[in-house]
Amino acid sequence: MKIGLDLAGGDLAPHNEIEAVKLFKEEHSEIEILGVVSRDILKKEKRKLKSLGIQIIEVENRISMEMKPTEALKVKNSNLGTLMELLKRKEVNAVVSMGNTGAVMAFAMTLLGRLKGVRRPALSSLFPTLNGSCILIDAGANVDVKPLHLYHFAIMGSIVAKEILNKEEPTVGLLNVGTEETKGSKKLSEAFEMLKKSKLNFIGNIEGNHITRGDADVVVCDGFAGNIILKFGEGLVELIINTIKRSLKEDKKYRLRKWASKPVLKRLFSNLNYEEYGGAILTGVKGIVVIGHGRSSPEAIKNALKLGGKLANKNLCGKIESAFSHLSTHHL
Amino acid sequence: MKIGLDLAGGDLAPHNEIEAVKLFKEEHSEIEILGVVSRDILKKEKRKLKSLGIQIIEVENRISMEMKPTEALKVKNSNLGTLMELLKRKEVNAVVSMGNTGAVMAFAMTLLGRLKGVRRPALSSLFPTLNGSCILIDAGANVDVKPLHLYHFAIMGSIVAKEILNKEEPTVGLLNVGTEETKGSKKLSEAFEMLKKSKLNFIGNIEGNHITRGDADVVVCDGFAGNIILKFGEGLVELIINTIKRSLKEDKKYRLRKWASKPVLKRLFSNLNYEEYGGAILTGVKGIVVIGHGRSSPEAIKNALKLGGKLANKNLCGKIESAFSHLSTHHL
Repeated sequence: MKIGLDLAGGDLAPHNEIEAVKLFKEEHSEIEILGVVSRDILKKEKRKLKSLGIQIIEVENRISMEMKPTEALKVKNSNLGTLMELLKRKEVNAVVSMGNTGAVMAFAMTLLGRLKGVRRPALSSLFPTLNGSCILIDAGANVDVKPLHLYHFAIMGSIVAKEILNKEEPTVGLLNVGTEETKGSKKLSEAFEMLKKSKLNFIGNIEGNHITRGDADVVVCDGFAGNIILKFGEGLVELIINTIKRSLKEDKKYRLRKWASKPVLKRLFSNLNYEEYGGAILTGVKGIVVIGHGRSSPEAIKNALKLGGKLANKNLCGKIESAFSHLSTHHL
Repeated sequence: MKIGLDLAGGDLAPHNEIEAVKLFKEEHSEIEILGVVSRDILKKEKRKLKSLGIQIIEVENRISMEMKPTEALKVKNSNLGTLMELLKRKEVNAVVSMGNTGAVMAFAMTLLGRLKGVRRPALSSLFPTLNGSCILIDAGANVDVKPLHLYHFAIMGSIVAKEILNKEEPTVGLLNVGTEETKGSKKLSEAFEMLKKSKLNFIGNIEGNHITRGDADVVVCDGFAGNIILKFGEGLVELIINTIKRSLKEDKKYRLRKWASKPVLKRLFSNLNYEEYGGAILTGVKGIVVIGHGRSSPEAIKNALKLGGKLANKNLCGKIESAFSHLSTHHL
């Protein structure tokens, strides 16, 4: 097993990636890492990168976090292009990048292509819940979708949940503004109908507060809602951390309280820190592509590598393709 | 000044409402409260309600939390119908109810009607941010909207922000999946264009994580996104409280840590507890209508009463009508 790691993506490359590789190698000596790095970064961090003892491929150009997908695709000999080519030629079993997300998706769609039957690849993202985790799909790949696409997301999300959450028959909920069948837009009602008739373990519409309550193992929504939820959650966690820090500072018994609240807060942050979940999975393309947050910690990148390895090992793509091969023609 | 309070709405009526009235009277002896209560509740809680020393109107029927708006409208002599009639006849200056939200909106739309020029009344909701609060509009009244409606929401939201947040020229952000002008759906691009050309203090598109960062005083979105954000935030806060409680319980130094973290957590909860903000304002109807959360605490209901009084005092409806009277005809 070999995983391709982007050493030039995200906001903090290659520092957090280097630390992540060290952490990962301690835990998973059986999995090889192949790093792709741009010339400028290699020049600066040659010593550190060499000392990692992993295979490294040097490319000329780096896709920045600000670059638009269409521009990124035009860049020759880039970190992302090379990474996807390696995956396409099966020289690696999965790729991991910290972004930018739009460009990673564009390269994956163009170079790898879609799995047979899948109309719209989507981002599967792990979310913490009261009783574990759930999969949110689409977390931001498709802003505008048709009912059929939502149905496809539900199928893919169920397979991801099966493999990642180890659920035999993952429950599927359709994100809506109410639980009644008739709620929301016409598009959602149509998707509801398709899901009701499917073989999936569909539990009906779920509302925003049911996500963290863990009502569904798979939360299906369009990429607009998914992106906003994901980012809003990130912002809310930031607000919470900030509020706690401020309260502690203003407290007269600061040092004592700080010491005393430490383990509670530590656990809180690790439970809520979405990035600790590794990253989102670009589901529906021909290959395992894990996209992490641009500001991922070494721990988060390590988890993204683990996630990539696990999905490759479980043959996620084969399982999705098999599921779509059993769909009736009017569901394709 | 007199505020009409629904003593039969929400999940916990009339207990939290009774406590709220006591709290409110201590702070605002200058404002009268007129309570509307259903026969069944009055029968059970006659003594407590009488001891409040407020004017109470008894109605025959109660609109339940589960009732659909269309059904609710058919109920004669109900708490919500009577409350709106009182507001319409200007016997009260504002009304406050803990729901159900759909039914309150239906009665308000039917009995009060829309302010001149306003196409779609919307829910304005207060949100905590790093540096204070912001107004989210629409928090759930209109699932499907046109660009013009979003533009109207921005105008109304700006007026609410001016009056509630005391901002001279409130900044307005359009909720989207990226900050570039071309991001998101065609509908959003069109709304962006209208807002750019307007006299509002429009700062462009904002993303989900910018809400809590406080980038905009007014966050404009459709009611689908608004509802999901509001409820997801509620769920996330619930998850956080649960995580903290669990960590504390599992800790060996439980009692000490619990004592030590108390002030920090107390402040955290009061900062994050959306209901402490009082409630959402149904903006754009002919009258001040404040809708609180179905499970509002007495403190939250007290704040909703304060909010209603403040908005009536500041003549919110007059200000909205005046703003719309200055719009050019193709913006109406």
